[in-house]
Amino acid sequence: MLIAIAQMEITPGRPDLNAAKMLRIIEQCRHTNIHLLLFPEMSIPGYLLGDTWEQPAFLRDCEYWGNQVVKASGNLCIMFGNVGVDWQKTNDDGRVRKYNAFFAAQNGVLLRSDGFPYPFRIKTLQPNYREFDDDRHFCSLRKLAQEMRLPAENLLLPLSISVDGRTLQVGCLLCEDGWSDDYALKPVPILSQNGPIDLFINLSCSPFTLGKNNKRHRVFSRMARDAAAPLIYVNNIGIQNNGKTIYTFDGCSTAYGINGETLLHCQPFSEQLCSISLEELIHPSPSSQVAVPNDIGIDSIFDCLEFGVRRFLQQTGLTKIVVGVSGGIDSAVAAALYAHVLGPENLLLINMPSRFNSSTTINLAHRLATNLGCRCVDIPIGESVELTLRQMESAGLALSPFMQENVQARDRSSRILAAAAAAFGGAFTCNANKSELTVGYCTLYGDESGFLAALADLWKHQVYALGHYMNQRIYAAEIIPADVFSIVPSAELSAEQDVDAGKGDPLIYPYHDYLFRSFVERWQRATPEDLLQWYINGTLEENIGCEPGLPSRLFPSVSDFISDLERWWRLYTGMGVAKRIQAPPVLAVSRRAFGFDHREAQNPIHFTQNYLQLKEKLISQQNGGVPHV
Amino acid sequence: MLIAIAQMEITPGRPDLNAAKMLRIIEQCRHTNIHLLLFPEMSIPGYLLGDTWEQPAFLRDCEYWGNQVVKASGNLCIMFGNVGVDWQKTNDDGRVRKYNAFFAAQNGVLLRSDGFPYPFRIKTLQPNYREFDDDRHFCSLRKLAQEMRLPAENLLLPLSISVDGRTLQVGCLLCEDGWSDDYALKPVPILSQNGPIDLFINLSCSPFTLGKNNKRHRVFSRMARDAAAPLIYVNNIGIQNNGKTIYTFDGCSTAYGINGETLLHCQPFSEQLCSISLEELIHPSPSSQVAVPNDIGIDSIFDCLEFGVRRFLQQTGLTKIVVGVSGGIDSAVAAALYAHVLGPENLLLINMPSRFNSSTTINLAHRLATNLGCRCVDIPIGESVELTLRQMESAGLALSPFMQENVQARDRSSRILAAAAAAFGGAFTCNANKSELTVGYCTLYGDESGFLAALADLWKHQVYALGHYMNQRIYAAEIIPADVFSIVPSAELSAEQDVDAGKGDPLIYPYHDYLFRSFVERWQRATPEDLLQWYINGTLEENIGCEPGLPSRLFPSVSDFISDLERWWRLYTGMGVAKRIQAPPVLAVSRRAFGFDHREAQNPIHFTQNYLQLKEKLISQQNGGVPHV
Repeated sequence: MLIAIAQMEITPGRPDLNAAKMLRIIEQCRHTNIHLLLFPEMSIPGYLLGDTWEQPAFLRDCEYWGNQVVKASGNLCIMFGNVGVDWQKTNDDGRVRKYNAFFAAQNGVLLRSDGFPYPFRIKTLQPNYREFDDDRHFCSLRKLAQEMRLPAENLLLPLSISVDGRTLQVGCLLCEDGWSDDYALKPVPILSQNGPIDLFINLSCSPFTLGKNNKRHRVFSRMARDAAAPLIYVNNIGIQNNGKTIYTFDGCSTAYGINGETLLHCQPFSEQLCSISLEELIHPSPSSQVAVPNDIGIDSIFDCLEFGVRRFLQQTGLTKIVVGVSGGIDSAVAAALYAHVLGPENLLLINMPSRFNSSTTINLAHRLATNLGCRCVDIPIGESVELTLRQMESAGLALSPFMQENVQARDRSSRILAAAAAAFGGAFTCNANKSELTVGYCTLYGDESGFLAALADLWKHQVYALGHYMNQRIYAAEIIPADVFSIVPSAELSAEQDVDAGKGDPLIYPYHDYLFRSFVERWQRATPEDLLQWYINGTLEENIGCEPGLPSRLFPSVSDFISDLERWWRLYTGMGVAKRIQAPPVLAVSRRAFGFDHREAQNPIHFTQNYLQLKEKLISQQNGGVPHV
Repeated sequence: MLIAIAQMEITPGRPDLNAAKMLRIIEQCRHTNIHLLLFPEMSIPGYLLGDTWEQPAFLRDCEYWGNQVVKASGNLCIMFGNVGVDWQKTNDDGRVRKYNAFFAAQNGVLLRSDGFPYPFRIKTLQPNYREFDDDRHFCSLRKLAQEMRLPAENLLLPLSISVDGRTLQVGCLLCEDGWSDDYALKPVPILSQNGPIDLFINLSCSPFTLGKNNKRHRVFSRMARDAAAPLIYVNNIGIQNNGKTIYTFDGCSTAYGINGETLLHCQPFSEQLCSISLEELIHPSPSSQVAVPNDIGIDSIFDCLEFGVRRFLQQTGLTKIVVGVSGGIDSAVAAALYAHVLGPENLLLINMPSRFNSSTTINLAHRLATNLGCRCVDIPIGESVELTLRQMESAGLALSPFMQENVQARDRSSRILAAAAAAFGGAFTCNANKSELTVGYCTLYGDESGFLAALADLWKHQVYALGHYMNQRIYAAEIIPADVFSIVPSAELSAEQDVDAGKGDPLIYPYHDYLFRSFVERWQRATPEDLLQWYINGTLEENIGCEPGLPSRLFPSVSDFISDLERWWRLYTGMGVAKRIQAPPVLAVSRRAFGFDHREAQNPIHFTQNYLQLKEKLISQQNGGVPHV
């Protein structure tokens, strides 16, 4: 009995296109020896659609296209994800009842079984963390069971299918149903008890996160072994977004044997139709195990970004891109990435010097362009900035040096890059990294603008690593000049930021990258209270992951440590939030990207009582001559 | 027995400030004859905090401040909202278990009763629509009951309190628990059955929405009457936000008698400490009924905006504001609103003419400034726009007339207003309305920029109405010149938008305002499929609310109707989304504001199969000479 995994690319919000692709795959499989054909979760509508779920016409359309797929099933048994609508019931919001549903069809009809109220199965565990909003739109099996006054266990029943002369009991799972470690209710062992189950099938729509596949292999492999049943994980590829945050879907669909062996692994970020026999899953030969690629390295980050940028350009119809290049690392890495995706002929690099830009960085920008084979033009900002200062002065408005820095940044992006991008027939990039975005070390309508912030989920040290990786592996040449890596990072907006004098950003990336990461990415978010406690306990480095001894070298006294901590915490929870509200969409890589993934309110800055008390104690000890711990 | 309602202002994310205020109110009540003192839902932490709930230190801080309030209770019985943490359990996301909780305290300790697992009560119904994300952070009573393998009814128990020598059974409700119409589980009748209940108390944190109080009075009054028990609704005032969308909280706390009479109604948008006796609630005299203000009119919109703008300025520390004034209605209304809030001396109006601006509108802008008593300066954009065109040309980049329109818009906002605002010591406003924001009829980094889009939840006709209202009621003078209302709305960015020739926006507001509202604000969202069906059924006007007969006057043929419909649908679901992602925060007024309230993905444009089939049929009928319906 042969099972095919259709690791297809899903176009979110386009049931017509997705169904058409599924119909093509079904036709392709019809005259093979495939018996069971699996599509991902929400393969008809896509998953991250915002409030499009509130359009009844869209739901009818999903049903229509789902029916076309069912009708086409023929002798194949097909399984796919779609929204399941119960037009007779409502959700808690008063809108029609919707389920995130698992459909199985054969011979033109849906397969159903006694004891379950619908001709489809329902997602049991619905994620409501990070980018996920399942409870906003869908009624879970848990909620349905409560409504029916039944234990949820009673609804977790296998689906009986007849394929290739055999009757199989299938455990139907949707994505989160397999990630049950944090839930009291665990669908796989319950299905096993209600079973026995011949095969678990997990239809997923699971976004890429650095290192997630490694974890998934541990979790799902153990799950198959514990259940002593094969488990097939079917994921889609493509990009989907919540507006502010764009996710890539890497596929990496996998078949696990009854002992948890990995017997089939689809390529990341690639459409594939792979097959494996049920017999091999049940009686795996040791030689048929396949290695699982590691997904924690800079190569995985590059693959995610390269795929995400390519797809986002395709989806928005962009074929030409303008990149402002300063000679610094962020814009160099952005230019190298886009040149690789679009071809150098479709890029226009623009260097926009002012009197504060050194010939060092100007020359680096030009060398980068030459190396990439991109056209590069110089459009200086001096004349326009002078005009702005003059016009302000005439109106009695005096601009401080700091204000003049922002004038320069806005002049570059909103005046030059936006106009140049329109004339070039495309858009311009936002080259911001996560470190500066965390604390708003960027100018709104200036360098914090653009159609996409492709690097804004990378800490500064990851941007450097990505630059090295592209030089070594993608271009196999020093495309990004070595000096771009070695000069001091600087905005070059004033004489105080003169790179030739070694002056630059106020951020000490080898420390602040890790401090900021603890604010944003820790599952249990760190705050000044935690950080100060770790500092005095001597466990700061192990908790945030920076180089041992670095904090005490940077901050000779506890008050130095505290003033740095408070400075950045104020910016992260204050002006940084205001700026992120108007930031471009961020391409997600990490376990927590800015935007819809990390939700935030523009609220007053707060320090906890514990923090304030600890701080007061430490400062008074310091001032009293008692050495700090 | 006297009950006090503390309709307090809550500062979101500042448990220290909120607790300090509660402690002051407790002190104030201690030496009065008040027995029971009620604070709103989440009165310690605030409610819309984004993912701050993921910081364990913040949760500890909320507990700390909650304990301070409990300790201060003394002989008062106090009830308040706070996060309830169970440090031994986890939520489904693996983080610590959190409840949206109702605390009652007396004599320095929490009041608890047998049969309930916590020393606080828990929200039963958690909203997950519009701006609400309750399931993301909190475990509901429904979920807890399922975990405990109990019917939820078993946990909906009255709280027994002893006050003024009496024992009362209190039905403890949190906000949505009272809005149970769309839920299968209805806490009030269940509590009554488990009761009898002497008094229902609903602690709320309920944002203002136009017309919501009218509905709430109907729902809550009926609820009290059906339960034959008094019901007290305690709401906070203030502003809270989700980043992209800012909500005002109007208070309007109300006490309902046992027959549903309104016996006490606190003022909207005002801190108040009101009291009423239990006896009056149980035996209301007909003369003690109070009138409930209508909240559907333009006066309510003004009150919401005036309060929201004032508080947002206070919270962000802004005391000076720059408004770009064009002579059109949007900027005139914005200027009049901010001048009222801040005083004219704290406003700087800037007119930024180009060669396309008529003397008509330039003069109107100056008359507005004179009427308001604001300083107004002219900063023309011609020289800078010319410089940009020249620089682009030198770089071989040709700008089309349409591109040159955007250059002007960006020059005004990002070059002039942003610099002027910094020099003036404040921020600049975004004057966009909801009609243009819906379809992206605005320029990113141009007129779609600013620190706050205060009018962006008003349709164009509401902006006009607000202008008239301010002239008549707020200023009692023609502050906004009559001609501002009568000239054709226009961006004046090209000769094609010459107001003196009667040329202006492509939007026909008396129709498109209502078309767009049906896309955005209908609970069951309208799409081209619905709209085309209504059009041919002759029910379009009644469904969308525009003037009868207007659509057929505007669109002589069905293909005219369709091409207009598709044009705006494409912009609403296409470029409009991309632009809104980077838009300023919107102050919410309606039942659906852009931002976090209306969540959206930047996805490909879609038309349903039903729509396409209907369209094809109608077009072929039209072309075949069959008259359209």
